[in-house]
Amino acid sequence: VTESTVPYSGVWPALLTPLTASLDIDIPAFAAHCKSLLAAGCTGVTPFGTTGEGPSFSVAERIAAIDGLIAAGIPAGRILVSTSCAALPDAITLTRHAVQAGCFGVLLLPPFFLKGVPDQGIINAYAQVIDKVADERLRIVLYHIPQISGVALSHHVIATLLKWFPKTIIGIKDSGCQREWSLGLAKAFMTPEPKANSCIQVWVGNEPDLQVMAAQGTVGAVSGVANVTPKLIARMVAAHSGPTAERDMARTQEFLAILSGYGMTAAFKGMMAILTGNAGWRHVRAPLVALSDAEFAQLETQMKAFALDPAKD
Amino acid sequence: VTESTVPYSGVWPALLTPLTASLDIDIPAFAAHCKSLLAAGCTGVTPFGTTGEGPSFSVAERIAAIDGLIAAGIPAGRILVSTSCAALPDAITLTRHAVQAGCFGVLLLPPFFLKGVPDQGIINAYAQVIDKVADERLRIVLYHIPQISGVALSHHVIATLLKWFPKTIIGIKDSGCQREWSLGLAKAFMTPEPKANSCIQVWVGNEPDLQVMAAQGTVGAVSGVANVTPKLIARMVAAHSGPTAERDMARTQEFLAILSGYGMTAAFKGMMAILTGNAGWRHVRAPLVALSDAEFAQLETQMKAFALDPAKD
Repeated sequence: VTESTVPYSGVWPALLTPLTASLDIDIPAFAAHCKSLLAAGCTGVTPFGTTGEGPSFSVAERIAAIDGLIAAGIPAGRILVSTSCAALPDAITLTRHAVQAGCFGVLLLPPFFLKGVPDQGIINAYAQVIDKVADERLRIVLYHIPQISGVALSHHVIATLLKWFPKTIIGIKDSGCQREWSLGLAKAFMTPEPKANSCIQVWVGNEPDLQVMAAQGTVGAVSGVANVTPKLIARMVAAHSGPTAERDMARTQEFLAILSGYGMTAAFKGMMAILTGNAGWRHVRAPLVALSDAEFAQLETQMKAFALDPAKD
Repeated sequence: VTESTVPYSGVWPALLTPLTASLDIDIPAFAAHCKSLLAAGCTGVTPFGTTGEGPSFSVAERIAAIDGLIAAGIPAGRILVSTSCAALPDAITLTRHAVQAGCFGVLLLPPFFLKGVPDQGIINAYAQVIDKVADERLRIVLYHIPQISGVALSHHVIATLLKWFPKTIIGIKDSGCQREWSLGLAKAFMTPEPKANSCIQVWVGNEPDLQVMAAQGTVGAVSGVANVTPKLIARMVAAHSGPTAERDMARTQEFLAILSGYGMTAAFKGMMAILTGNAGWRHVRAPLVALSDAEFAQLETQMKAFALDPAKD
């Protein structure tokens, strides 16, 4: 599979990052997780987003892990890597590495430490990454998750970047979890009759909105839930109505209800420990806290009741 | 001056970071600014905090700049460096470097990308920095600025760290700009009859609260305004009542009123350009945006009216 033949559609799980007992990235477990998801039909994988604790790792750790995944046989063209950092030089280093490694593209937040920054500063930050990497292979998916990053992407920012860099900006991952905002984004940027420089893919990261957005024409998603239920999420991206769609939404809501009782990433990792039998999956990096033994036992009971079916979920 | 003879009191300006035209750190201008502030009576300097755009620079840039300041003659024992990073390994690298370079101490945020994290995760993050640096010379000033970092420090976090690491945790910089919270912090942690493991310095970063906090017993500040008016801020830290104190507060409010019309760091840097005649001071790193020429011209008029007096301000 080469980069150019990978369709930009379908499910790209926002990968959890497995850790060793010393809290380093467990690259063999990471690669095994990717292989399992690709085998389940995912188009690609997205390491180092929010669910993946991406900004908790240093630039060197992130580069070594991407190199390790590729060395382990994950096709670079099926990796959409989040290269988001507080410092622009770090985002540039990671983005340059991703392009040179042949990755499909990068998922990129604006610098996320300072808050209340002007739109022009956000535009300048993206422009500087693009200008410094200076490689026409670069593809960027903008990343909107203001409740975590603290820095929202306005329509003005998106439209300006799209106008300046129409070949580079290919989409936006909207994990803001505000359905009205997502619909407005689709209306503004996913015109049914695409005009030059005005149409990009809008992918919601909030699973309950997948079918609503599929009805607007979205064809893909970067999803955290897809770490555990990739087939379920793939169906929700592909179909927005009918009995199967209704059943899938109910099952997704059932899954999210379990998750909501815990810290999200810790709970996802607990589920992975249960499903793989590898207790190491429970490790998280500070400032997150792993599930306690009591929480883990409760989660086991809940997952037994959920009865995950690898053929359907 | 050696580290051990520097009193932990007085004013430590939250340094602005001058940049070259290529937006790299201008180390000669940085050192000159430090020398000017120390000559004006500041106890020390605090590079790479929020006002200093600290997290906008890579680990390598931050290390090179601290080494550069020391090489230029700034005594390491008068440097309290913010080593705050989203990734713990980066915070550990910077903190270890600061200790080994002989810096007075470090100002440290919890990892600031993820939000809504549990207190225990914040405690673990600080503990891991302390355990990995493993150097009894390490002094940490906790850093509370939740409106920017998105991660507040609770009394439980502070009390637990103080109990576990009584020799390492020496203070807290409270830049939350919530006076009631600052007073509560002083009441909880600056007991008039210090008990073992229960008393640290509380320094507010919000200049209008300096005199109120001085009345509670604070003896120092890490202040952004002190980049421009170090003597004014030193007097506000040392005296909380009387005609001079009232005049100083009025003058500080006058200064803050000018500043409030612009982006804070860009405006501070514009003031530095005006005061030093070095136009390079106007540069900021994205996502910040430098003052426009029109804004700069307006700021020049305002600063002329403010009539800064280096002997008094």
